[in-house]
Amino acid sequence: MQYLASPKNNSIKELKKLATARGRRRQGRYLLEGEHLVEEALQNHAEIQQLYVTTKFLQHDPKHLVKQLFDQTTEISEAVAQELTATVHPQGIFAVLTLPQVTLPSELHGKWLLLERIQDPGNLGTMIRTADAAGLQGVIISPDSADVWQSKVQRAMQGSQFHLPIITAELAPMIRQLKQEANLTILGTLVDAQAQDYQNYQAPADWALIMGNEAGGLTEATAQLTDQNLYIPLRGQAESLNVAIAAGILMYSL
Amino acid sequence: MQYLASPKNNSIKELKKLATARGRRRQGRYLLEGEHLVEEALQNHAEIQQLYVTTKFLQHDPKHLVKQLFDQTTEISEAVAQELTATVHPQGIFAVLTLPQVTLPSELHGKWLLLERIQDPGNLGTMIRTADAAGLQGVIISPDSADVWQSKVQRAMQGSQFHLPIITAELAPMIRQLKQEANLTILGTLVDAQAQDYQNYQAPADWALIMGNEAGGLTEATAQLTDQNLYIPLRGQAESLNVAIAAGILMYSL
Repeated sequence: MQYLASPKNNSIKELKKLATARGRRRQGRYLLEGEHLVEEALQNHAEIQQLYVTTKFLQHDPKHLVKQLFDQTTEISEAVAQELTATVHPQGIFAVLTLPQVTLPSELHGKWLLLERIQDPGNLGTMIRTADAAGLQGVIISPDSADVWQSKVQRAMQGSQFHLPIITAELAPMIRQLKQEANLTILGTLVDAQAQDYQNYQAPADWALIMGNEAGGLTEATAQLTDQNLYIPLRGQAESLNVAIAAGILMYSL
Repeated sequence: MQYLASPKNNSIKELKKLATARGRRRQGRYLLEGEHLVEEALQNHAEIQQLYVTTKFLQHDPKHLVKQLFDQTTEISEAVAQELTATVHPQGIFAVLTLPQVTLPSELHGKWLLLERIQDPGNLGTMIRTADAAGLQGVIISPDSADVWQSKVQRAMQGSQFHLPIITAELAPMIRQLKQEANLTILGTLVDAQAQDYQNYQAPADWALIMGNEAGGLTEATAQLTDQNLYIPLRGQAESLNVAIAAGILMYSL
């Protein structure tokens, strides 16, 4: 097993570039950090190119992750781990994965979550995790949203990228395809005159729910493509709900 | 109006100490940042001791916040704002507020949210904001949770501290009081043999819902005080829901 001690090593410098969306796009891969997420990747047969573990992690690896990825493993120093980590207390395990190229499945059906211009990585990751928990078919994210493959999104989505397709694409053509090919009802979350309290809405079996930007909501162009808009009543004095909370309430009730 | 240019000024040094829970406790006050939150504080007649605004903010104050707080206002330099801010791009407005001493109202009724050992400030603030939106009576937080008066919690709760009582106290005596004085049904979120799917549960009019730590859930001592435990079914492959999402789904459905 190779041992890398210096954070100035060229391969470490390349890995550090995976901290940006540009670096990930250029290299076609992303970095996954932490024991639990690497375990999820393994269990779901994700394509793990390399594994980097500290000497300390090597000595205590209760889930035998290194054994399963022995040929791809490089031992690193604590200094290298500190260089690669996005956390304050790194667990000492990092995997390099192929950036998935996901497209719509050929047989479209079920329930979908569509996200437009979501800016907060925590909100984005949490909504994907909730879509997974609620049994949705997949998530489609507009390209002007936060990048899915950054560490904060990964921490919030807790491995859900291995459970359901996550597609980054312009929403308008996707919405048309979901309507035409699968006859999905497109649900928006814009408050207009026709908007309905979600508690009184009888949802069809198949739908796509669109959640918009934290401050601005849906764009007008996207709002025009919805079949029905829903709202969540505010009973107290709060002006609005956090977008991930609203998405959670809607995905679970519809 | 006084002008403070140097971040090394003694009063600025004291304000900086409000970034820690210890500093806030010692000084009995906390710092609120941003135009929207200061406006919320004003609208809700919170006790604003001082206001600090940059020269740039003074020149463009569309909501006339400074006018309403003129006697308490100090003009500060951008350098001071950079020293005080918890954000990357400060808006140039900071208010110093009295740390509220909130106790249970004498007439207990309605719906309450109880939080035990919540560690993530974003989760804590979002749950308080959702409790506000859902029309709950108040929130009680165990002392070993994240501190409510830190900036990350304030950004997530969006002024909800001005809308409903937020009480930091040991949960066990509070739960006993809510049961004995108000006859509230105590709902937990522990998965035990008697736990019920929340969708099949007929909630009474008055209840207290307890949400536990992100990783560990409720402590055993607290779990023993619940009248009914509820769970949210996981239909996909996700192992769990984010605690704030789970709280949102439950508060809105019960």
